[in-house]
Amino acid sequence: MKLMSPGELESQLREIGATRYHHLHPFHKLLHAGKCTKGQVQAWALNRYYYQSMIPVKDASLIARCSHPETRREWRSRLVDHDGEAKGEGGIARWLKLTEGLQLDRDYVVSLHGLLPATRFAVDAYVNFVREKTLLEAIASSLTELFSPQIISERIEGMLSNYNFVTTETLAYFSRRPPQAERDSRFALDYVKAHARTTEAQQSVVRALEFKCDVLWAMLDALYHAYVAPRHIPPGAFEPQD
Amino acid sequence: MKLMSPGELESQLREIGATRYHHLHPFHKLLHAGKCTKGQVQAWALNRYYYQSMIPVKDASLIARCSHPETRREWRSRLVDHDGEAKGEGGIARWLKLTEGLQLDRDYVVSLHGLLPATRFAVDAYVNFVREKTLLEAIASSLTELFSPQIISERIEGMLSNYNFVTTETLAYFSRRPPQAERDSRFALDYVKAHARTTEAQQSVVRALEFKCDVLWAMLDALYHAYVAPRHIPPGAFEPQD
Repeated sequence: MKLMSPGELESQLREIGATRYHHLHPFHKLLHAGKCTKGQVQAWALNRYYYQSMIPVKDASLIARCSHPETRREWRSRLVDHDGEAKGEGGIARWLKLTEGLQLDRDYVVSLHGLLPATRFAVDAYVNFVREKTLLEAIASSLTELFSPQIISERIEGMLSNYNFVTTETLAYFSRRPPQAERDSRFALDYVKAHARTTEAQQSVVRALEFKCDVLWAMLDALYHAYVAPRHIPPGAFEPQD
Repeated sequence: MKLMSPGELESQLREIGATRYHHLHPFHKLLHAGKCTKGQVQAWALNRYYYQSMIPVKDASLIARCSHPETRREWRSRLVDHDGEAKGEGGIARWLKLTEGLQLDRDYVVSLHGLLPATRFAVDAYVNFVREKTLLEAIASSLTELFSPQIISERIEGMLSNYNFVTTETLAYFSRRPPQAERDSRFALDYVKAHARTTEAQQSVVRALEFKCDVLWAMLDALYHAYVAPRHIPPGAFEPQD
């Protein structure tokens, strides 16, 4: 292991995205290609809701660990993006537009009663990672957003053209995310490039991004197992009608 | 919801075991019936090693929360069971006999490099549950051991008769567990029956046992998805040779 230049570190991080980000997962390919049933799309949106709902908790945990006002101020915009300025605004509210558009009962979604346990374990692992690891690793774990604008544009196009139960309005969450993700991931990438100045720190950044890719991947593994094949739904989890 | 008698609470807990314990999981049925490949048995043992290795950490977290010496003293026997009195003794060492008997490199197993991320997330969720919930819930979450003696006897018989790569010696872990599990689960069951005296406390006990069943179930879901069907191994996880 030798010390990388900031540019080499960035290349290695982008290589992780190219090989381990969940755009490569079979569930995502089914979802975007219009090969999911409505029940499968519902299960995806229902489970992903828990991830969305915990993002501001994760971000507040990160802010709570920053000793520099400029980093806290920068990261605070993520809270605004997800929680909004008022009731009914922000990313979580827009995600609930999606689940409502898919005819899922809002109270049922928010109750988390139909959640796959594996979704809960993966998302909680992410929140605990941000609470317990170094600030550098916590920031690095957000870098999957480097890769999200592309997947989101594919998703919008694929879902609108393939599912008659999906409308532009229900996909409002996604149309708002790319510029936010670009701004946020640029800040996080500059931060890790500037602060990972030893081989150990650089390796911790690399492992943090791999960890985060594992979280997203495990969520889709669980959806695939429960709702695609062998379609083996764990006790108590959401049962699609189709 | 009405207050249950201690006997009614026990019945409800046993009903959870009958309907949600992992003896009902398809992966377990394959394993016991001799329908797993050697690579699948290796993957199971490798992943389950992480669970075994974290049990004393979980138990020490529980002891650390007890204010009564008699409960701490009783629970301490679990540390002895798993960590032993000397190097090479105890449940974790016996589990490594199993992985060695399956021709898995010991350093590779202990490194956790081949672990499924979902296994890590599920096991860590269990440890965090014991750290963060009430002592009553922490104790209740151990009650899956009420159901383990039966599964273990089925496992020993099924594995010895069906796999020529499994010997009595490699299964030493299992031959020692049933009396320990019976003693431990009797204590934990008596504890929750005596201490869950409100409907809220009783419901928290029920939910804690359901949570623990979810942990064990999610571990087998992940194994099934990665190594049985669709045999979709996440990036970086153990790759069987068969």
